[in-house]
Amino acid sequence: MRVVYTPAHQGHDPVSETVMGRETPAYEVPERAELIRAALVADGGFELVGPTEHGLDPILAVHDPGLVRFLEEAWAQAEREGIDRGAVIPDTWAVRGLAEGFGPEGMRLVREPVAIAGRAGFWGLDSSTPIVAGTYVAARGAVDTALTAVDLVLDGGESTVYGLCRPPGHHAARSMYAGYCFLNNAAIAAESIVGRTGERVAILDLDYHHGNGTEQIFWRRGDVLYVSIHADPDRQYPYVLGRADETGEGPGAGANLNLPLEAGVDDRRYLEVLDRALEAIAATPGSIVVVSLGFDTYRQDPICDFALTTAVYHEIGRRVAALGRRLVVLQEGGYHRPTLGENARTWLRGVAGRAGEPALPSTT
Amino acid sequence: MRVVYTPAHQGHDPVSETVMGRETPAYEVPERAELIRAALVADGGFELVGPTEHGLDPILAVHDPGLVRFLEEAWAQAEREGIDRGAVIPDTWAVRGLAEGFGPEGMRLVREPVAIAGRAGFWGLDSSTPIVAGTYVAARGAVDTALTAVDLVLDGGESTVYGLCRPPGHHAARSMYAGYCFLNNAAIAAESIVGRTGERVAILDLDYHHGNGTEQIFWRRGDVLYVSIHADPDRQYPYVLGRADETGEGPGAGANLNLPLEAGVDDRRYLEVLDRALEAIAATPGSIVVVSLGFDTYRQDPICDFALTTAVYHEIGRRVAALGRRLVVLQEGGYHRPTLGENARTWLRGVAGRAGEPALPSTT
Repeated sequence: MRVVYTPAHQGHDPVSETVMGRETPAYEVPERAELIRAALVADGGFELVGPTEHGLDPILAVHDPGLVRFLEEAWAQAEREGIDRGAVIPDTWAVRGLAEGFGPEGMRLVREPVAIAGRAGFWGLDSSTPIVAGTYVAARGAVDTALTAVDLVLDGGESTVYGLCRPPGHHAARSMYAGYCFLNNAAIAAESIVGRTGERVAILDLDYHHGNGTEQIFWRRGDVLYVSIHADPDRQYPYVLGRADETGEGPGAGANLNLPLEAGVDDRRYLEVLDRALEAIAATPGSIVVVSLGFDTYRQDPICDFALTTAVYHEIGRRVAALGRRLVVLQEGGYHRPTLGENARTWLRGVAGRAGEPALPSTT
Repeated sequence: MRVVYTPAHQGHDPVSETVMGRETPAYEVPERAELIRAALVADGGFELVGPTEHGLDPILAVHDPGLVRFLEEAWAQAEREGIDRGAVIPDTWAVRGLAEGFGPEGMRLVREPVAIAGRAGFWGLDSSTPIVAGTYVAARGAVDTALTAVDLVLDGGESTVYGLCRPPGHHAARSMYAGYCFLNNAAIAAESIVGRTGERVAILDLDYHHGNGTEQIFWRRGDVLYVSIHADPDRQYPYVLGRADETGEGPGAGANLNLPLEAGVDDRRYLEVLDRALEAIAATPGSIVVVSLGFDTYRQDPICDFALTTAVYHEIGRRVAALGRRLVVLQEGGYHRPTLGENARTWLRGVAGRAGEPALPSTT
């Protein structure tokens, strides 16, 4: 199986994030992607290829140019303003309550701030998504990784390609970065597939968290089906979106399926819900599925509360492959580093129809 | 001069706030109000009185019941959820980008989250406004302080009353707490005056920061004139609002005057701009002015960049009194503790027409 990887992600190396006002060590760190890469290399069954540059056009098909400009400029502006914190994290956001009741004339005034603290809060959702010197280049590399995976499937005749995207993407909305995500790799990939094939595309989001960005981008679109299995937002990030009654609107009505789950979900329960997700995809025309793949569903994940085992990832991969569609698999979250490589390897071996076990060969 | 004060503010005692992702010692602390109280008591020319309870009705005339309910419940919910951080500070906000492009049906789904982290980000603006065990009682006490000041002016025959409000209020909007503020004391006072007198009321905001909450609450109202002198939001909190071209809308068109200023503003420059503010008030009918009074314009204030001296506060007080209107003066910000008491005393002596100097009598 081809794996698209670029070391560009390493420039996005935040030291801390801020959770309910407190700095905590960053969870979304370069080591994550390196551990996955190492496990796949050691396996021997995967071939790493670098991404090709795809430029801004496919990004601007999904994102507000203002967001992209902000991400490109943020670090340099913080340096100019003498912000000496190692990362740009906002403290003041452009929230719904700020100008509630302002009419059309007043809303015209709610425009992008000038100072970096205000700009970051205008484009961002939270305090857990630090921007550092290498963030923009890394985010662009992750998009190119996703789009190269698409190329290999559409032009290269591959049935499954894995894009080792980092930073992840599914929380990033049209005009908003969020939840460790800056540009929505999966949405950009799906949009590109729709444009190139004219087919409907399904996105299957298996990250522990709801992909609010992907949902928002395709909310009114009937040509992209979004199906997500995730922690109920009543207890978990992103809190505001991800409920079961979010089914899309207008031309997108019925093309959004959220399957929010309780804490403690185990292998059996997860597979049951997965089957519902796969049924929805099978019922929709199209030959390609984009998978937003997270391993924060793992039972030891430090910020999540599902209880999946490594073994089940093989079965999940197998069932997704059994759809019989071509797969563009893109990495999202997963923060338990000791198992991250093995979980990814196991999932992809499940797709490839190879045995989930045994462990890595002793020659590595 | 009567001064309304209650020790209820002491229960709002945050240890830290979070600025661009980092915890820093809290600036808005109980000592602030106690230093002002002590300076006024020592002066001998002020009479302290406690507030009377005014209930929820005047608050709900200005604020969303959901915000008030949240403020009342937040601490207990954090305790139930086992959040052990000393304060509730959100990390994820209900921002404009979250559901951008959702139509009417989709917006119905952007509703109050369930978990405390999400709820706080639904009602709040920033990470610098911690909620602790005593916050709600303190905020209610500050509102009662403001409303009792109104009573003393309307019913008690006083020409000027000072409400030693803490926490401050002017950043709190109809559905949003923000910037150390939970309930908008000045807006609640102004609304109450309008209701009781049928007159137009002017709010003069002399805090260093733009009173975005007061602006928002009266944005479409012609019966409350809002005039604010403050740091240009292009460089300072609240970043998104406070620009000169925000003049109100609909029935409120022309009833909002923002005077944003550059860094380094000195006494002379400030008095020049103050005169413009006072002219606007003098040109508007009404017999009562609510003053949102901040001392973060002082040259040594640790989070601000104006250069006012203690002496100028006497002259500012004198010029405001020269309007010849009754004054409800309510405390907002000011964070340089060594001078806070003396600056407040000096300002109020300016209003009372008493000499600004000398310093405190030796009998204290």
